[in-house]
Amino acid sequence: MELKETLIDSKKVFQGSIITVKQERVVLVNGKEAGRDVVVHPGAVAVVAVTPENKIVLVRQYRHPVGEALLEIPAGKLDKGEDPDHCARRELEEETGYLAGRLKQLTAIYTTPGFCNEKITIYLATELAKTAQHLDDDEFLNREYCTFQEAQQMIADGRIHDAKSIVGLLMAASSCR
Amino acid sequence: MELKETLIDSKKVFQGSIITVKQERVVLVNGKEAGRDVVVHPGAVAVVAVTPENKIVLVRQYRHPVGEALLEIPAGKLDKGEDPDHCARRELEEETGYLAGRLKQLTAIYTTPGFCNEKITIYLATELAKTAQHLDDDEFLNREYCTFQEAQQMIADGRIHDAKSIVGLLMAASSCR
Repeated sequence: MELKETLIDSKKVFQGSIITVKQERVVLVNGKEAGRDVVVHPGAVAVVAVTPENKIVLVRQYRHPVGEALLEIPAGKLDKGEDPDHCARRELEEETGYLAGRLKQLTAIYTTPGFCNEKITIYLATELAKTAQHLDDDEFLNREYCTFQEAQQMIADGRIHDAKSIVGLLMAASSCR
Repeated sequence: MELKETLIDSKKVFQGSIITVKQERVVLVNGKEAGRDVVVHPGAVAVVAVTPENKIVLVRQYRHPVGEALLEIPAGKLDKGEDPDHCARRELEEETGYLAGRLKQLTAIYTTPGFCNEKITIYLATELAKTAQHLDDDEFLNREYCTFQEAQQMIADGRIHDAKSIVGLLMAASSCR
């Protein structure tokens, strides 16, 4: 079966500071019409950063939508027209105060393709050099460190449950083996 | 630093068939106020289903928001008040035509906690028994099979790039070792 839906109508219903919401209509495989609510997102990057001492740099920050402070790999949204590689180096430096000597793309994921187009490009950063953390005005986070083994333990027992972080940490672990 | 934001205002700006969007205001750690656009989602489940022949059951379906047919593990949204275990068994049967003899929770992930509360509980289903696929009227998907080794290869080379599927497949692989 050929899998394809054809857009026939699109109406912007919400414009936020980061996301836009569109109410769209599509024609399905069987010729019938259906509604699709779509959250449009600018895209993002996330970075598994490994220090010369083989420690992974993590950030803990409060995530208002889920009402919890989550342990995550450093990440951030793409500025308009920004190259993901540039964004990865920028966000890593801003959030953790590390410059990436080497940057390698691990994968790119769709976080929740049923209703949103957000794509996160995930990198492995090594040969880190220390500089200064410089957070946005409304950004508050604590930096933490762990080994690959500790990261895998925290994924297994549910202490890390952010999707991009689990993907990045597990793929980096097999890439670094 | 204690990481916490306090909600001071919430206004519903969009009510879709699945998602709701709220424009909220919070007080930050430093006492200042900030806006937060939040997508409210009912939550979902996803299932790594392994046949008696040690093949994983995947589904390929068109995802309108990203404009691609993606290869994913079977998944679906929670009905109102539905228990995630029940939802996992229901969605697995509907989408693939398999009954799960054993169901074990692998983890629960936040797909994109920066702007959305979606939580996906991910299961490993084994001791599968064949019954009949019965899709929703507007659901079209192709069933495919692969080994754990093939799944890991497809994750490594980017043929699988759906976040929940990567998390489920990598965690199931280490759980089944």
